[in-house]
Amino acid sequence: MKQIILRRALSARPTATDFVAVDAPRPSCPENGVVARVVHLSLDPYIGSRLRGRHMGQAPPRPEIDPIPGAVVGQVIASRMPGVSPGDWVHGMDGAWAEEAALIAPRKLDPKLAPLGAHAGVLGMPGLTAWAGVTRLAQAGPGDVVLVDAAAGPVGGTVGQIARSRGAKRIVGVAGGPEKCRLVIDRYGFDACVDYQADGWREVLAAALPEPATILFENVGAALLSAGMAHLAPYGRVVLCGFAAHYHDDGPAAAIPAGPVIAKRAKIMGLVVYDFFPEWEEFLKEAAGLMREGRLTILEDRVQGLAAAPALFERLVSGATIGKAVVTVAAEENPLNREDPKTAADKKSRPPDPRA
Amino acid sequence: MKQIILRRALSARPTATDFVAVDAPRPSCPENGVVARVVHLSLDPYIGSRLRGRHMGQAPPRPEIDPIPGAVVGQVIASRMPGVSPGDWVHGMDGAWAEEAALIAPRKLDPKLAPLGAHAGVLGMPGLTAWAGVTRLAQAGPGDVVLVDAAAGPVGGTVGQIARSRGAKRIVGVAGGPEKCRLVIDRYGFDACVDYQADGWREVLAAALPEPATILFENVGAALLSAGMAHLAPYGRVVLCGFAAHYHDDGPAAAIPAGPVIAKRAKIMGLVVYDFFPEWEEFLKEAAGLMREGRLTILEDRVQGLAAAPALFERLVSGATIGKAVVTVAAEENPLNREDPKTAADKKSRPPDPRA
Repeated sequence: MKQIILRRALSARPTATDFVAVDAPRPSCPENGVVARVVHLSLDPYIGSRLRGRHMGQAPPRPEIDPIPGAVVGQVIASRMPGVSPGDWVHGMDGAWAEEAALIAPRKLDPKLAPLGAHAGVLGMPGLTAWAGVTRLAQAGPGDVVLVDAAAGPVGGTVGQIARSRGAKRIVGVAGGPEKCRLVIDRYGFDACVDYQADGWREVLAAALPEPATILFENVGAALLSAGMAHLAPYGRVVLCGFAAHYHDDGPAAAIPAGPVIAKRAKIMGLVVYDFFPEWEEFLKEAAGLMREGRLTILEDRVQGLAAAPALFERLVSGATIGKAVVTVAAEENPLNREDPKTAADKKSRPPDPRA
Repeated sequence: MKQIILRRALSARPTATDFVAVDAPRPSCPENGVVARVVHLSLDPYIGSRLRGRHMGQAPPRPEIDPIPGAVVGQVIASRMPGVSPGDWVHGMDGAWAEEAALIAPRKLDPKLAPLGAHAGVLGMPGLTAWAGVTRLAQAGPGDVVLVDAAAGPVGGTVGQIARSRGAKRIVGVAGGPEKCRLVIDRYGFDACVDYQADGWREVLAAALPEPATILFENVGAALLSAGMAHLAPYGRVVLCGFAAHYHDDGPAAAIPAGPVIAKRAKIMGLVVYDFFPEWEEFLKEAAGLMREGRLTILEDRVQGLAAAPALFERLVSGATIGKAVVTVAAEENPLNREDPKTAADKKSRPPDPRA
């Protein structure tokens, strides 16, 4: 099978040429795990941080040896996990940029709940991250005014839509460029979106928040956090989710100005999504319901074939993707399903992905 | 009457010679306020910040014109406030370094509750600050491990003792110098105190926290906050109370490293004591009870006479005071009380302050 590895250790923001596809032996099945053929591969900014050994103390993959890690939606080929059989669908955080992946104790998916590809995006880790921050940390509810950056991305976009579903009265996004801002307003239903790449954006931000934000959800970095804190209500809640702008930055580490935290009586909360994995089923139930009602949607920036992953990742870490970055590694339909023509027909009747 | 003013606008950490005592007209009585003779004057680090226009947007006192602001315990001379009469005792945050002060809507004190001087310290704003942070923001309880700096001071010392009374299982202080550390352990009953001026103090801090801190109460500045964050438990609560080390620092503003906030899933809360003034009576009830049981005590660094205030303030802002800085501006006993020999005798029977 094919997998993608690093050509060399990274010393800067990754580019497509840092990666190479190689032949590799098919993985063996781990205890309490499965081998799955990878169908949907999620590309996420934190992987860029992890490739450089900057994520949660985890060692980076060894160049020319280890496949690039990534969350996957796959179909089980072999199982040593109770209750999971070949043909079942699973989601694993410990997948890889590869045609097959060994997954330890993956989550079994219900193919009837939602399109399988959604589990690599809005129903996957980005969605859970947004849901945990909005409902568990910030505890958004009626009357809240929510400010979130990277608003066109899967975390930011889901933050706004989940907050709206919980009764927040105003949702303001920050995103880079007019196309992303249109997406945030037209498709995600935010009340306003501020293009931080445009001149005078600080005034636009101020105008978008005639009432100050009661919740600030930070995905980008120190500069936007400081700008947002200026519009935070007293006792506002701030969720620190990620600092994507700093993942490949060799300048000073991201910092929070302490004076405004005291002056605003802010409550700042660090979010690590891993802690909320036990609540994934509860999140799924809520989010899949919202999707069916048309109240939760995230655009996908989807490419076809494992070989396209490096170029998509380069676009992701440079802020050029729009929506959730996903790689279709293989067709959902496959030899394991051929014996059941009805299932295959069901799958074919699905509307095609608009970006596929 | 005498009052103390600034000789000139401050451009650095204040010293005793920045101040001068001058004659001033006696204040007139404000609407819904009183004129009180000042008996106990509280000196607090935030005043140093305020003198330089760096506190909560408040204008600094004008040199050669305005008296230095300060919290006072005084006895009413004249009143235009319902329920308050001459001879009553009051506490006002809007007092001054002066023999008499006009106070708007001061809190009336019950002289039987506790020694009057305590209202300029452990029962005054520093105590309320500590209580609000421990009970309202951090919500300390059984099992908590508390780390607090400026532990010999009135806020830090009270934090530890209130946390202990709420069931915290381990209290670790940080203070500057062996004398302060002895005070923190021997009199305030902390389990350990780390002298951050001693070589190897980071190792001592690590050894003092075999279990990580569940609550970190920050009074000093960014360096100690970073050191403390390294020993914070997951989901630890951090109360940002003040940054005394930065009040007279012209370097970069105090900042909180963002990475550890996320990695520790910390909850960081800004504390502004003004918000808790409505709860002062509830605090008093709890704190006075603890004082009577011998479970709450704060050493006073007390000087006699208004003229001694500038030198004490210089020692305070340079970290040289030990315990709560208080000026005895006048005797509690006074002509207004002379007609009641019993009251006077009661007061005389009080044990003298050990540092007076």
